Parts: sequence; structure tokens; C-alpha cells
Amino acid sequence: MTAPTIYVLHAAYRSNELTPVQLVDQLLDQCDKADPAIWITRLDRTQLQPYLDGLKGHSPDTRPLYGIPFAIKDNIDLAGVPTTAACPGFSYVPEVSAPVVQALIDAGAIPLGKANLDQFATGLVGTRSPYGVPVNSIKTGDIPGGSSSGSAVAVALGLVTFSLGTDTAGSGRVPASFNNLVGFKPSRGVLSTKGVVPACKSLDCVSIFAFTAADAVKVFKLTHGFVPEDAWARPYAPSAPGWSPGTPFRFGVLPQSQRHYFGAPEADVLYEESVSRLSALGGTPVEVDFEPYLETARLLYGGPWVAERYAATAAMLESNPDGMLPVTRGIISGGNKPTAVDAFRSIYRLAELKRASEALWKQVDIMLTPTAPRCYTLEEVEAEPVQLNANLGTYTNFMNLLDLCGCAVPAGFLPNGRSWGVTLMAPAFQDERILALAGALHELSGVTLGATGSALPPASTNATSTPGWMSVVVCGAHMEGLPLNKDLLSRGAKLKQRARTAPVYRMYHLPGAGARPPRPGLVRTPGHGASIDVEVWEMPEASLGTFFGTIKPPLGLGWVELEDGSSACGFVCENAEARPEQDITEHGGWRAWMAAQK
Amino acid sequence: MTAPTIYVLHAAYRSNELTPVQLVDQLLDQCDKADPAIWITRLDRTQLQPYLDGLKGHSPDTRPLYGIPFAIKDNIDLAGVPTTAACPGFSYVPEVSAPVVQALIDAGAIPLGKANLDQFATGLVGTRSPYGVPVNSIKTGDIPGGSSSGSAVAVALGLVTFSLGTDTAGSGRVPASFNNLVGFKPSRGVLSTKGVVPACKSLDCVSIFAFTAADAVKVFKLTHGFVPEDAWARPYAPSAPGWSPGTPFRFGVLPQSQRHYFGAPEADVLYEESVSRLSALGGTPVEVDFEPYLETARLLYGGPWVAERYAATAAMLESNPDGMLPVTRGIISGGNKPTAVDAFRSIYRLAELKRASEALWKQVDIMLTPTAPRCYTLEEVEAEPVQLNANLGTYTNFMNLLDLCGCAVPAGFLPNGRSWGVTLMAPAFQDERILALAGALHELSGVTLGATGSALPPASTNATSTPGWMSVVVCGAHMEGLPLNKDLLSRGAKLKQRARTAPVYRMYHLPGAGARPPRPGLVRTPGHGASIDVEVWEMPEASLGTFFGTIKPPLGLGWVELEDGSSACGFVCENAEARPEQDITEHGGWRAWMAAQK
Repeated sequence: MTAPTIYVLHAAYRSNELTPVQLVDQLLDQCDKADPAIWITRLDRTQLQPYLDGLKGHSPDTRPLYGIPFAIKDNIDLAGVPTTAACPGFSYVPEVSAPVVQALIDAGAIPLGKANLDQFATGLVGTRSPYGVPVNSIKTGDIPGGSSSGSAVAVALGLVTFSLGTDTAGSGRVPASFNNLVGFKPSRGVLSTKGVVPACKSLDCVSIFAFTAADAVKVFKLTHGFVPEDAWARPYAPSAPGWSPGTPFRFGVLPQSQRHYFGAPEADVLYEESVSRLSALGGTPVEVDFEPYLETARLLYGGPWVAERYAATAAMLESNPDGMLPVTRGIISGGNKPTAVDAFRSIYRLAELKRASEALWKQVDIMLTPTAPRCYTLEEVEAEPVQLNANLGTYTNFMNLLDLCGCAVPAGFLPNGRSWGVTLMAPAFQDERILALAGALHELSGVTLGATGSALPPASTNATSTPGWMSVVVCGAHMEGLPLNKDLLSRGAKLKQRARTAPVYRMYHLPGAGARPPRPGLVRTPGHGASIDVEVWEMPEASLGTFFGTIKPPLGLGWVELEDGSSACGFVCENAEARPEQDITEHGGWRAWMAAQK
Repeated sequence: MTAPTIYVLHAAYRSNELTPVQLVDQLLDQCDKADPAIWITRLDRTQLQPYLDGLKGHSPDTRPLYGIPFAIKDNIDLAGVPTTAACPGFSYVPEVSAPVVQALIDAGAIPLGKANLDQFATGLVGTRSPYGVPVNSIKTGDIPGGSSSGSAVAVALGLVTFSLGTDTAGSGRVPASFNNLVGFKPSRGVLSTKGVVPACKSLDCVSIFAFTAADAVKVFKLTHGFVPEDAWARPYAPSAPGWSPGTPFRFGVLPQSQRHYFGAPEADVLYEESVSRLSALGGTPVEVDFEPYLETARLLYGGPWVAERYAATAAMLESNPDGMLPVTRGIISGGNKPTAVDAFRSIYRLAELKRASEALWKQVDIMLTPTAPRCYTLEEVEAEPVQLNANLGTYTNFMNLLDLCGCAVPAGFLPNGRSWGVTLMAPAFQDERILALAGALHELSGVTLGATGSALPPASTNATSTPGWMSVVVCGAHMEGLPLNKDLLSRGAKLKQRARTAPVYRMYHLPGAGARPPRPGLVRTPGHGASIDVEVWEMPEASLGTFFGTIKPPLGLGWVELEDGSSACGFVCENAEARPEQDITEHGGWRAWMAAQK
């Protein structure tokens, strides 16, 4: 079957091959035939009609998710439909949808239903639900991964285009790995958790499952509005630019001693292939010490954060303990044991580990790890439910404690037929950079999408300029490798492209003085100008102020017109300082002029 | 006596009226005669000699704190001298000084000794120490305030120029109020707490007591270096400019119902006088709802944060409980009772209160409150030690929980002879703005310094441009009240001054187009230019990037030369667009030209 990506569905809508009503009817049929354990509540045709009615008069041009079906993990509110958190005794019917859900509906998306999960989102296995265990979409007999089990399987089977999960310790990434999907865990607080049943309230994130990173980007952009009445919400403020193909970067690779596969070392081939693919994209691999992260993962598992799960379910545990699954009750009731002193001691240890973990980001831009070390069969997990669950979180548990964002990406299939994936991660607020790299890595993997057998369409990522970043056109000593390039690099700027100006400039040589190197001056002179070689760098907007402080008169920043007709911020020179005898326009650029001086 | 401010001592050193050796000898004499309860450990002449030796070959010009005596609260390490935290059984001798102490010594300051405190910095009264109770410097029989009791009294009596305290719940501000001093609590993590005995590790701050805000600024600037091995350290990154005299601002005033004086309402006169003084400085008073802050203060007192105090002293409490004062033991041992669930519930409530508290900063730039509602006598506190202590924290307890910075400033004397003070506060990283306003407010109060009787020298604050802010010279539609001024205001920019350029510019009228208003273009034309009216605005450097995005060609940002010979970032125009028939230089500025068009 063809994976119903946003692009595929919108193309079909635009060509009138398909209507949202037709799609919904088809999907309801498919859902009837598919594993019922995927869903806790499915919307029927009548319940779906209002969403279809809402699309009237619209199109993909006016509603960015026009007619796109999605699933909602059943710990996130959809107005008028029960939220169970996979615990019937806990169930309630919310009057309003969670803001993230409402944003998707407002964009034209259609909620097909509420997906199964590990009870109270407690687990990475996907087997801890009274509503059954969704069958792994890739290999029957394997666990689906959790806690967002139904959300992942629904996408992998093509029943929806994308789904919302939640991710406290890995629930949005582990099931992606086990079902051959992209699983994106945004920066904490960026997708509001208002209207979400808490697991660990201080750590919970809403996550996105999709066939492609391009689809995840679209969903992310539509859902990251700041929700002030959510005390844990944080405004999305990108701290890095989106990545563009060809831009060099450094990425962290685990040393052999920190690659834990728990008896399934064959995955290391796929890890190494992912290293090669990132290298092919312009990445420089750097072997790094990941131990502070692995220790933090163990801290979450052994520490007092389970008290947050107790706080979230105390009313249920104290009034109706038998309403909870024994395994879930066993774990969560342990949360009532640690003292506040224990909690603060773990918070102190976390602060130390966080500081230790920061050293990594001086060495690399992003980190590459397995998503989960390996998958297990249903029988294996039934025999050893707690320890095997813990193993799954080796490379995911630390992420929210250390305030990172990450994206799970399919890496290929193992000899035993299982899908296996890797995760790209970076400090918070680099969401779009991670998604851009995840998309490029995914393309190179050549894998099919979910369980559909569809090939990944090329160029599914759109690496555009990120909010919070800006282009700066440089034409002289700031260019790559020249003396003032440091003033760009020290501000985190990245070379975006080499280009030429529109043919309206003259370039002058301004002699050096004191410690100041010689510089060129670009003066707009329509009528008798020429095209000049320049470089376009991407810089955080927030750094332009200090960068300006390094510039000396007669240079300043104006709008430089490029050969392709676009204009960007760049170096210009006051005309008053441009002496005819210093006109070096004929050389076509600063590097050429410098070479001619030797 | 003359208060030994940095200015006074350096003037005496420069004129050779005094040497550091002479000063130290004088101070040791004075200390011998003063209340011994001020100190836990005083350095003798021999111990002080190395610090005096270190000044050889230096002067106030090469060591910014050359020969300036200071006191160190005895929960902060000074190498080779015991750190007791006012608990003899806890005492240890550190091998190295805390980084904040070392920074002061490196700057030429001389540590006279370790000052008394409430045991383990637990208390706001200053009476909970086995080393005695320092006598209140203003009114004998009153508590000195705590926990930094000795640090405050030592400064107030002129035994030192400044002192270090710590401030978790108000310990750096309450004693300032009771001893007529400036007490500055910086943003959390900016002055490293490495080498400080923890009280509540996640909240503790090092604080500064001084006679004047100008002295506090100097000490602050020398001590705020980032200490990476301190897990709680944060780099100082100003989020607002320093305040300059004449710059308008809005400040929050408590409604009558939220002014709590606990039976001493006569202080309200001084609060109202402080409101008048801030208004005289260009402030607009705004009555605000302060309840989220007051509730947060109660949350600290009743919540699980006392578990942090238990964690810090558990070894002592469990092995040698009788080594602790009964009152301290009673409070801290309560920290072992709450569970981790209690802790997380309070952390959740704090997150909600923090969000609610943020509304205030949309209404005002800074907040004015009492520092402590009132002072008490030693007898009153002995009779009711816990409740009266709690009353003192009404306006201080919330500050570190809500991540604010604040400065306690003397406001005058009450009819009963007590000193009383107010506090200016703002969100974290506005430290220098708060200090600049605190200095100006202090000057207007006309009070004497500490217990010295010295008058406050005028112009003791230096309101200069703050790191992280920059000047932007505007000459057209961005000027105050004109259509594009919004692009400055929305970035937090403030009008600094009206000025004129150097006589080297010509101004051109660029006609409007589409939605774009007409604009002037300033072109540097030495030889036949003129002085043009401009405005200099102060803008966060981090906002220049987005500001640039609002500028349209042919305008850009270059270095504009002003009449006084200085240059600053400002609007320039590409010469190519300057048509002779649009030359409006003769009008002398954009406003004049516009007026002439009517």
C-alpha cells in the first residue's frame, strides 16, 4: 500500500482523485479489519461527520492539514470522547480538547480515535493495558513498544497519517523504533501538556509519530504555540538554525564500551551504517563519552521521579487500587516510599550530571545513539516484565531530565526481520535542526515507511531558514578561513552558501590600520556595478548586536542584493570612504584580489 | 565617623593619607573594642600580613579593591580558616577559598574575618547562634536580623567596607534593613555557591552588604564569573539595560490590603515616601496584585524545601544531634518528614505560582516592597521564636523560588529609632538595573550610612551602558512618537538621549511606497555635511537581529558619528539612492522637515 503521507493525500485531494469523505470511509473499513487492540475508542462515522463538515469550503491551501487523519494517544483529551489512560476506572470525558489536539483540528486534521497505551503511560513495552496489546506492525509476536503503542502501530499500518503520543522516558521513541517510524520528542514544554494525563508532570512531553520527518515538521509547526495557562509550557525559541544540505556538522558517536545491545549485537551494523550516512551528509563523527547520560537514565529509573506518577494517580490508588493493573500498581505505588530528602538528593545529583553532560555539546552539534538497544518478544517480556522494560530505556530515559530534544529515525531491518532505529538528539530548542537532519538521514537509509512497504519519497525535508536565525552576507575578511571569520564562528554562525551579488556593486580596498586587517568595501552603484563573490552565513538573530560591535566604520550592515534577486543583511560601505584609486571591482571578489597581491 | 566606602578609602590611599597597613591596624583596634559576637573567627595581624603583602607594587588603579576590608559570613570558605556555619560540631578547615572570596582577594580586598550567623543560615532573626547575638547596630535591644547577622553589623559599624552574606529566604536583605544598609541578592547562580555550606542547595545565593549601591555594584562585577564545576552556577547574561537617570520606568506598588506590618503600621509612611522618591526619579507607580508572591513566600515556609536543609546537615543530625541548637534542630529535623510526593506536589504548585507571578512583569519594570515588615526586640523573638521569624520573610521568602534578583535599600528611620528599608526587585539577570535604581533611590532618601552617621555622597552610582545592551542612533520614522518607533519599543529599547551628529552628513528624503512611510536617509559626506538631529536609543544587543529585519533598503546600520566625537550604531543610507533634489539637510533633521511640509 502507499503510505498516506500528507504530501500523498494532499496530491490526491488536489487532483480530485480522493475526497476526505472517501478517505474516512476507506480508513474506517481498514480499521474494522485491523487489530482492535490498536484503539481504546474509535470515532464512528457520525462522530467524524462534524470534522468533515468543518472542511467544507476549504482545501490544502487554506487548511495545512486539510483532511489528514490522525490518532491520539488515550491520555490526551479529545472533547466529548473518554480519556482513559488505559485505566477504565480512571476514565473521564473531557469537555474541551487538549490545545495540541485543537490546533490540529483547526488546521483541518481528522481525529480517528484514541489509541491504546501502557496504563498511565508507565512502560516502554506496550503490553501493560487492559485493552489488549497492539500487534507489532513489523513482526508478529514482538512487543509493539510503549507506552504509545497504539499511536505507533496505527501510523505504521497506514490507518492514519500521523499520531500524537506522549514521551516522559522514551514512550514517543521506543515504539517508533519497533514499528519503523519517525518518532519526534520535542523540547519540553513546547507542545503543551495541558489536557494530558500526567505521568511525571515535570518531565512529560507530547510527541509525534509520522512516516517521515517532513510530516513531523509540519505537525510540529502547527502545534508549538505557547499555552500560558499551562505552568510547564515554554515558548518555542530556536537556539540553532535548521540544517541545510551541505552544511558541515559534528556528531557524537558512542564508544564500543557504551554500546549496549543486551544480547542483540547485530544492531551494531545498523548503528555503524547510520554513522556512515551522517558522514555522507557532511557530518564529522566524534567518539564521545556518553556516561553522564547513561547514568542519568539509571537515575530516572531508580530515583524519586516515580513519586510524580504516584502524585498523578494517588486518588485512584488510594480509593480503587484494584482498578489498576498489578504491574502498574506495583511500580507506581513504589512512588510513595521516597522522602523529600531523597527527592532533593536526586535533584542535586541530576544537576551535577546535567553540568557534566554539557561537555558533550562543546565537542559535537548533535548526538547519535540507538533508539532502543533491541526489541523483545511478548513472551520474553511476560517472563521478565520490569528488567526488560528498563533495558529499553537505556538511550531514552535521560532526555527529558537533561532537557534535550530528539528524533527517532528508522535505520533499517535486522536479519531477524525486526526494524531498528537510531535517535538524533541535541539540547532543547534545536527541534527543527534535529528534524532536518533526521529527514536527511532517513532518506539515505532507503527503508520503506512503517509497515506499508512504501518507499520514502526523496527531498521530503524542507531545510529552510529557521525562525530566530538570519542570513548575513560577507564579502571580505569575514569569509571562511579569513582573519575575521572567527567573529562569525564564535557566534555560532554557519556557512550557508557561496554566492554572487547582483551586478550593481563596486568593491573598494580599504587599507588596514593598526591591528585592523585590510578590508573591502561594497558600494551599491547601479549602472556601472558588477557581480561580486560573497558568502552567505546563517547567524542567530540574537547575535547580530554583538556582531555589529565588532564592525568598524566605514563598514556597516545593509541589504545586499544577490544574483538570484533576493536581498539579505550584509556588509556595505559608506560611499564617502570609497576612493576611485582603490576600486578593485574588476577582480570580482576579495579572495581574487588578495591572490593577485601575492 | 566616616563610612569607609571604596571611594573614601581609595581617595585616602591615592592622597597618601592612609596605607592599607595603617587601615588594618586601625580596624583591628576598632574590632577589639566592638561587640565580639559579630565574628566567629577574626584574622589576627599575622594572618592578615599575606593579604597586605599581596598589595605591594599595586594601587587602586591596578587592583579594583586595593586595600578594601571585608567580612565573610561563616558559611563561606576562606582557605585555612575554619568554616563553622555557627555550629562548632560541624566545623571544618577548607583548603581553598570559595571562588567568590578568591575573586575578591585577587582584586586586592582584605578578609578581616568570618562573621556570625544563624546556625546553618536557618533563620531571619540573627539570634540563633552559639557564638552570641551581634548587637543591632542601630538600636540596642533589637535583633540584628539574620541569618547574615555578623556580616551586616560589621559593615554598619564601619569595621569593613562590605561583606558577603548568603540569602536563601531573605538572609541577605533582612539584616540590611535592620542595620541601615544596602543588601543585594543577585540572580540565583550568578555568584557561585561553591565553597558555601548549603542551606537549600537549589535556592542558595551569595549576597553583598554595602553602605552604597555603588560599592555593591563594584563587588558584584568582580564576583560574577561563571564557575562551571558548580552545578548550580549560571552565566551572568543581563536581560535589561542598566538604568540611567531620567529614563522613565514603571514600578509596582502594593495595594493597602497586601501591606503587612504586623502591628507596626508606622512604616507605611516610609513605604509611601519611597513610592514618591521612585516617582521623582521618573517612575510611574502601578498598584499591582502581589498575592502570588505572598503565597509563594508561605509555600517556602510550609513546604518541603526544609528537606534540603535536612539533606545538607543529615550527617550531623544523625550522628551528633545535640551539637545543633535546639531551635535549629527542631526546624531542620522536620525536613525528614515530607515524602517525595509532597515535594513534587509543592514543585507543581510553585510552577503554577511562578506562571501567575509573571503577569506582574507585563505591568511594571520593577517591584517595590518593604524588605521586612518590621523589626522585633530580642525579648519578643525569644518569646515567640518561630512565628516572628516567619513574619520577617513575608517579602523575601519568594524571591529565589521565583527566580528574581533584588536589592534592599534603606528608606529612613521610624519614630522608635529603628531603621527600615524597602526592596527593589525584578526577574533574574536584571541585577545591574536594580542596583542602578537602588542607588538613585538611596540617594534621594538622604539617610546616613549604616550606623556611621556619614552622609551618602551624591552620584555614588554610575549608570553606564550595561553589557548586553547597545546604542542605536535613529534619525527618522523611528524617533519617539513617529510611526516606526514601535519597532524600538517592542524590543524593549529605551530613549537614552537626544543628540546631533557630527557635521559630516547630508539628509535625503526617501519618498514612501506602499505601506512604507516616507523616511530620511543619512549619507556621510565629509566636507559639505551638516549636524543632524538624532535620538540615541538603548536596545538589547540580542534584539538587533530582528530589528534589522524591519529595516528596508536603501537603509542599513552603520557607525554614526555624533557631535561629541563618539560613534554608535545607527541608520545610514546607501549613497546610490540619495538624489540631489531630495536633499533636506538644510532643515537640520527629520522632525523639522516634516513640520515644514504642513
